[in-house]
Amino acid sequence: MTSKLKIIPLGGVGEIGKNMTLVEYGNDIIIIDCGLSFPDEEMLGIDLVIPDMTYLEKNSARIRGILITHGHEDHIGAVPYALKQFNVPVFGTKLSIGLIKHKLDEQKITDADLTCIQAGDKITLGCFEIEFIKISHSIAGAVALAIRTPLGTLIHTGDFKLDMTPLDGEPMDMRRLAWYGSDGVLALMSDSTNVERSGYTQSEKEIGKTFEHYFDLATGRVVVASFASNIYRIQQVADVAVMRDRVICFQGRSMVNIANMAMELGYLSIPKESVVDIEQLKNYPDNRICIITTGSQGEPMSGLFRMANASHKLNIGTGDTVIISASAIPGNEKGVAKVINQLFQRGAKVVYDSLADVHVSGHARQEELKLMIALTKPKFFIPVHGELRHLYQHSDLAVSMGVQPENTFIPEIGGIIEFTGESARIAGSVPCGSVLVDGLGIGDIGNAVLKDRRLLSLDGLFTVVIALDKETGELCAEPEIVSRGFVYVRSSEELLKQAKAVIREQALLFKGAHKSEWAQLKNQLKNAVKDDLYAKTKRTPMILPIIIEIDKNGGKKDE
Amino acid sequence: MTSKLKIIPLGGVGEIGKNMTLVEYGNDIIIIDCGLSFPDEEMLGIDLVIPDMTYLEKNSARIRGILITHGHEDHIGAVPYALKQFNVPVFGTKLSIGLIKHKLDEQKITDADLTCIQAGDKITLGCFEIEFIKISHSIAGAVALAIRTPLGTLIHTGDFKLDMTPLDGEPMDMRRLAWYGSDGVLALMSDSTNVERSGYTQSEKEIGKTFEHYFDLATGRVVVASFASNIYRIQQVADVAVMRDRVICFQGRSMVNIANMAMELGYLSIPKESVVDIEQLKNYPDNRICIITTGSQGEPMSGLFRMANASHKLNIGTGDTVIISASAIPGNEKGVAKVINQLFQRGAKVVYDSLADVHVSGHARQEELKLMIALTKPKFFIPVHGELRHLYQHSDLAVSMGVQPENTFIPEIGGIIEFTGESARIAGSVPCGSVLVDGLGIGDIGNAVLKDRRLLSLDGLFTVVIALDKETGELCAEPEIVSRGFVYVRSSEELLKQAKAVIREQALLFKGAHKSEWAQLKNQLKNAVKDDLYAKTKRTPMILPIIIEIDKNGGKKDE
Repeated sequence: MTSKLKIIPLGGVGEIGKNMTLVEYGNDIIIIDCGLSFPDEEMLGIDLVIPDMTYLEKNSARIRGILITHGHEDHIGAVPYALKQFNVPVFGTKLSIGLIKHKLDEQKITDADLTCIQAGDKITLGCFEIEFIKISHSIAGAVALAIRTPLGTLIHTGDFKLDMTPLDGEPMDMRRLAWYGSDGVLALMSDSTNVERSGYTQSEKEIGKTFEHYFDLATGRVVVASFASNIYRIQQVADVAVMRDRVICFQGRSMVNIANMAMELGYLSIPKESVVDIEQLKNYPDNRICIITTGSQGEPMSGLFRMANASHKLNIGTGDTVIISASAIPGNEKGVAKVINQLFQRGAKVVYDSLADVHVSGHARQEELKLMIALTKPKFFIPVHGELRHLYQHSDLAVSMGVQPENTFIPEIGGIIEFTGESARIAGSVPCGSVLVDGLGIGDIGNAVLKDRRLLSLDGLFTVVIALDKETGELCAEPEIVSRGFVYVRSSEELLKQAKAVIREQALLFKGAHKSEWAQLKNQLKNAVKDDLYAKTKRTPMILPIIIEIDKNGGKKDE
Repeated sequence: MTSKLKIIPLGGVGEIGKNMTLVEYGNDIIIIDCGLSFPDEEMLGIDLVIPDMTYLEKNSARIRGILITHGHEDHIGAVPYALKQFNVPVFGTKLSIGLIKHKLDEQKITDADLTCIQAGDKITLGCFEIEFIKISHSIAGAVALAIRTPLGTLIHTGDFKLDMTPLDGEPMDMRRLAWYGSDGVLALMSDSTNVERSGYTQSEKEIGKTFEHYFDLATGRVVVASFASNIYRIQQVADVAVMRDRVICFQGRSMVNIANMAMELGYLSIPKESVVDIEQLKNYPDNRICIITTGSQGEPMSGLFRMANASHKLNIGTGDTVIISASAIPGNEKGVAKVINQLFQRGAKVVYDSLADVHVSGHARQEELKLMIALTKPKFFIPVHGELRHLYQHSDLAVSMGVQPENTFIPEIGGIIEFTGESARIAGSVPCGSVLVDGLGIGDIGNAVLKDRRLLSLDGLFTVVIALDKETGELCAEPEIVSRGFVYVRSSEELLKQAKAVIREQALLFKGAHKSEWAQLKNQLKNAVKDDLYAKTKRTPMILPIIIEIDKNGGKKDE
């Protein structure tokens, strides 16, 4: 047992996504968040990515619990995968726990130990005492954590912004953060997502005016697309809709699910009679209809995507006003643009973030980040939740606020930041990385498989099958060629005919060759085909030579 | 013969890229620009995309020439492909023609008829009289076109912005545009790229101050990444470098080529002794070195990419200042972010557009677009160079400037906009579309091949080969399985063993079956394998069943 305090990020540093951080002292480990991220474009065919939890599996007896700061996928998405390995208690606010429960149900995990807490609550896990502190973010029920450890207090902001007029009434609990600041904070871990932006993030309430403006201009239906988890945004849209005497219809699976859950849990307050389902819309004129839908990221199959594509009952057309109340997450820009173009083409009036204030970020900008540092006065500073450039810039910001440069750390996934009484240092690392989930496979897909997928995606595939007499190496049948994704076969007869000639020529070499030479001959055949095809097409499909060995005598035996 | 005037876009409307527009009257056709675009992420493995030129091939005898507004890829990239079909004269300013010549050399086209013109020149092509008018853009030698036709004057802006203090001295020739405006303009085709932005685009000169600031702060090498074609940007960086007594080293193939060409043609003016090659850099201390490189878009294999990856002689490290003087083109955001992160990790100071004014756009914003309309006072308005949302918004802008709503057209690729004396209308269309270039293949790749590439990229491939006796349908050998991009084969023995059992079972059905049933049995085998694999992995690789028919008697004959 050690008397050192360790902070070990397993994700969410040097990247945006799959946030997960361990705090360890002596025999106790607690986990802050347990998120997933979505695959990069290089991760072809991968469904999602979770942190490598090998270290936790090996130390599962020491884990006291998982603390959830809020219910976004990059903070809760890996909980089901974690609980399958180590079934420890999970703590979070009502909405976070509700969203986790939904996930666990989908994966048929029924024995989870879930506890709802509220901002202001304190719990004890092993040697740690944790207080949940109200902050603002783009999802309801978001908290920061104050973690009292034997060596001092750690503050983890979760994702946050300072919103002086948040929809849920109370701004960030600055007094509580200030109290810890006065009491002494050993280290602050703070959200770096928006560190490149100067000033303050606007209050959520500010954009309410934009909604009022566009609702007033609208003569037909109003369709608003947003993140399903952004309950505050939905509340604002619903408020304006109700005020303007419009009924509200939720569309898109996650929008319907989360809106229902939020209404049940009391996070979302809409008069019952104002919410209608799609079948009821025909009873209302267009100017009394407001549709709140998924699809703000242009995701295929989302509500808005299908409405723009005429593959949804609610086809968008002339007279409709569509408000896309979100900004494109990096990587989604083209998809969002495509949906916007289609909406214009269908005659709708489209309002989006480059034209009007229809979105505010959920993350603190520079002045808010400074405020967090000023309130908590940490001795050590660890920027989290950001790509490397964000972490470096956030670290510079902390130094500009008086943190000693040697007391700031650029965290790495798996890297151990170790605190003794007075000092801290990077002290080695634990097993770590990204685990790719594809279908039922968790972590079975590695670089070799991804490389093959990439190769196949570029110029397709060219399979060559030759059947050889097992004894003599003679060709027993015409070589077969099957290609996919390489050329349009029907207009490439000549190319295939010539390739067949090359194959036949190469196949002759097997005759009489010693069996030990076959592998080399097969490789030679592959290269000959590759060169032939490249010369004629300047393309390099994956060449897949397959030899079938025919045992002519052996075959007889079966009869 | 018709006495109608037709404008037919073959690209660049409803999209950003592959700009190409025809103007046709009677027996004469002229072509404005002839560009390419880069493939979307769905166009797996495609190298580039050019307009469908079928209509021009069929009417090649009537083509009088190609007019180039400037030398960007989306305006000149398809010239070699066009000239292979119809070798007509090409007109452009010195730099545009220089860049085209370079392309033609690469494709070994030696008989092109290229003519250099200057802003202010007039030429006559058939019934058209064309004047080239100076405008500003992010490449040197950019012009707008005034085309006098028998039915009135057309103005095509090319890509433009109003820069009152451009690097090449003269601002846009507003007096000439105003002259045409007074004389009467039938129709204006104007650049819509930046129509969503209010105000004016900054002058190129404004960002010179930013360069001075960061050069003054730099204690080590300064590395600037920009588009190779942005000669003005290179000139500004070079000017600051020379003033600060730094030598300049160009890196990246296109940067070296274009910089040399621009220096030869007089577009770029740098003292000879200030330009050094990479080998000479060792003679200078770091604070006397400025490197100007490609890679501002994070392109793999570009100069900056390799410097950030330690795979370039000039490895970036602590003390270096890297200025990325460009903004990310939609779709490149993640690649650019990756390079920036790597540069931070290597210890460099990195300056980029979200932190400082290191880039200005080459395209006019709303007030400049209004100015263009005010100067030319067109009767008809056709927004070009933009996605649909840009075209719609630009059209609204024109209406707000007094163009009659019925006199604005949202152009479509292939759609004929037909003018008679007084009126204009959409009058049918010509063959049109996107031609995909992949290796040597031009237009041979269609949706079927792309769909296969996509399928292969998602879950890979599962090839099943069975050798059957041609006569009896009996299995002549063990079934072979070859998979790629599906699972990691070495850790999937059990999965493959079970799949083999399924295959063997299915293969038995061929025995004694009539030959006409084989296709159906093959399909059945495919589905059985698919179901088996999906149940066990929740993945759907492309299943490729191949039957080899063994003619046991026939085989003997060859001996």
